[in-house]
Amino acid sequence: MATPRDLPVVLTGDRTTGPLHLGHYVGSLKSRLALQDSHRQFLLLADAQALTDNADDPGRIARHVIEVALDYLAVGIDPGKSVVCVQSRLPALAELTVLYMNYVTVSRLERNPTVKQEIVQRGFQRDIPAGFLCYPVAQAADITAFKAELVPVGEDQLPMIEQSNEIVRRINRLAGRNVLPEARALVSSTGRLPGIDGQSKMSKSAGNAIPLSASPDEIRSAVRAMFTDPGHLRASDPGRVEGHVVFTYLDAFDESPGEVEELKAHYRRGGLGDVVLKGRLDARLQVLLGPIRERRAELARRPDFVMDVVRSGTERAAAVTQETLDEVRDALGVFGFGRA
Amino acid sequence: MATPRDLPVVLTGDRTTGPLHLGHYVGSLKSRLALQDSHRQFLLLADAQALTDNADDPGRIARHVIEVALDYLAVGIDPGKSVVCVQSRLPALAELTVLYMNYVTVSRLERNPTVKQEIVQRGFQRDIPAGFLCYPVAQAADITAFKAELVPVGEDQLPMIEQSNEIVRRINRLAGRNVLPEARALVSSTGRLPGIDGQSKMSKSAGNAIPLSASPDEIRSAVRAMFTDPGHLRASDPGRVEGHVVFTYLDAFDESPGEVEELKAHYRRGGLGDVVLKGRLDARLQVLLGPIRERRAELARRPDFVMDVVRSGTERAAAVTQETLDEVRDALGVFGFGRA
Repeated sequence: MATPRDLPVVLTGDRTTGPLHLGHYVGSLKSRLALQDSHRQFLLLADAQALTDNADDPGRIARHVIEVALDYLAVGIDPGKSVVCVQSRLPALAELTVLYMNYVTVSRLERNPTVKQEIVQRGFQRDIPAGFLCYPVAQAADITAFKAELVPVGEDQLPMIEQSNEIVRRINRLAGRNVLPEARALVSSTGRLPGIDGQSKMSKSAGNAIPLSASPDEIRSAVRAMFTDPGHLRASDPGRVEGHVVFTYLDAFDESPGEVEELKAHYRRGGLGDVVLKGRLDARLQVLLGPIRERRAELARRPDFVMDVVRSGTERAAAVTQETLDEVRDALGVFGFGRA
Repeated sequence: MATPRDLPVVLTGDRTTGPLHLGHYVGSLKSRLALQDSHRQFLLLADAQALTDNADDPGRIARHVIEVALDYLAVGIDPGKSVVCVQSRLPALAELTVLYMNYVTVSRLERNPTVKQEIVQRGFQRDIPAGFLCYPVAQAADITAFKAELVPVGEDQLPMIEQSNEIVRRINRLAGRNVLPEARALVSSTGRLPGIDGQSKMSKSAGNAIPLSASPDEIRSAVRAMFTDPGHLRASDPGRVEGHVVFTYLDAFDESPGEVEELKAHYRRGGLGDVVLKGRLDARLQVLLGPIRERRAELARRPDFVMDVVRSGTERAAAVTQETLDEVRDALGVFGFGRA
């Protein structure tokens, strides 16, 4: 087995709200390719969490479960090394969520900075679904059910890890022993990739994303539409590099950082056209995404294989998470047929 | 099978916080003995709900699971007719709870009159556990998972049925068909039995309860200690019947209501001592509780039998509730390996 039990456990995953894009590649997928060799990695297809703010369209969330799994396999996630599993098909996660909810107060959840911020972003105001308010508890269930020691997160998700560890300490104190490990956040050093409009983070709903499955033409038009320096009217003009999306992408994807630095200097002086930069980025993205797209198309022709990967990963995850649930219940003295 | 699928389904049960007492007998157990012949009755040993306000002592909640099951069997609940099952061992209940939490807002839960009242009673103030705030959602999961059409409740629990039916309507609307039935409350016509102190409802924690397993001596001292008419100093004095706990109990338990009415008239006129009344009630309660206590003691000597009743009931309930969970997920289009 390629993921022996003595490797440190890392839990990561994605809400299945849409296809993965270049932002995911830079922000998480690339590091997962490295982590799957050094860690016991679980990848959670987080459809249950996606429902907390998409409750009106469960079908869309369901359809993207396999799409995201395809994205994983296409970029090189190896099911022999990483366990790909479906959140809603792991009953122990719901059972731990319901149990942990007794150990977290409503006011504690209302003070969670990430939840507060996301309530504003999603326009919930007073109509916050209970599932949304409680999703840090569900995340604690995810993290602890896998006994994850390492959880890759963005800066803005740090309060989630803190909430999970608070629950861990509460459970361990009540149990009188360390039945659950605390988790450590692995904060990504790479910043978030902006959308092609340069306005915000890349997201499908904002229409500013380049999906991993983008066709050569789609990549080309996306690069052509990228926000550059609006003051840079002719190639001979001096230009600004800050906020220039093509340069941001070259920083993220170009394999010759030295050459990119030279291009930036040239652009600042004047005499370098956006067309040249866009041509370079387009070529690089075609090379990066070409094989991913082809592998994805090939896998999409083998739906049974992909479904089997997800099914067997979910079965393995079900065993792991059920074992943790049993341990937590035993440690707390919750009723069980084996012991009463 | 004594509970064929075409009988209307009734769901009832008890939080496993302590042994059952005469208050439970009058308020619910007696009617369950009738219901198990006319309905498909599920009895939920509600240990998970008990944790929502007893999170610091899961062991105590667990210990009472089998104690309450013993009480059920001792009063005449027939495992061939009624299904006795453990809430925390039914994963589908937690899974439905987590799903339904997406369809109920926090402010709706905060407006629930029963929750508001109980928050005060339990002294939670601002430190309300999330599990406690959300327990109406968990109750909706219980009710709907069994597709209960009838739920026996006290007047004060009516908002719980309303909340459950709101969720049912929301799910059915989203599914485009009636996947879940609405439940009807069966409000008990008998009032609540007061404690022997006459002050409040009978409860173990108030020390004013007569448990179903009370010994002959315990019954006798409890009756002797009952609150009567403090102004009725001598047998010859006229007395007040209202608030006279012995009369309240005679109303509930005496098999000759006509004689009780005569005794009330006599007491009002004067010339009837409390000792006579207490003697009559004691005799009646000894007759009622004697066989229950003996059956209970006999069953307690067969712990494997009781455990088997609970285990097989829980297995049957697990199948029923899992089927409902599958139906709800299918109807909403939540991810499933069978369909994607």
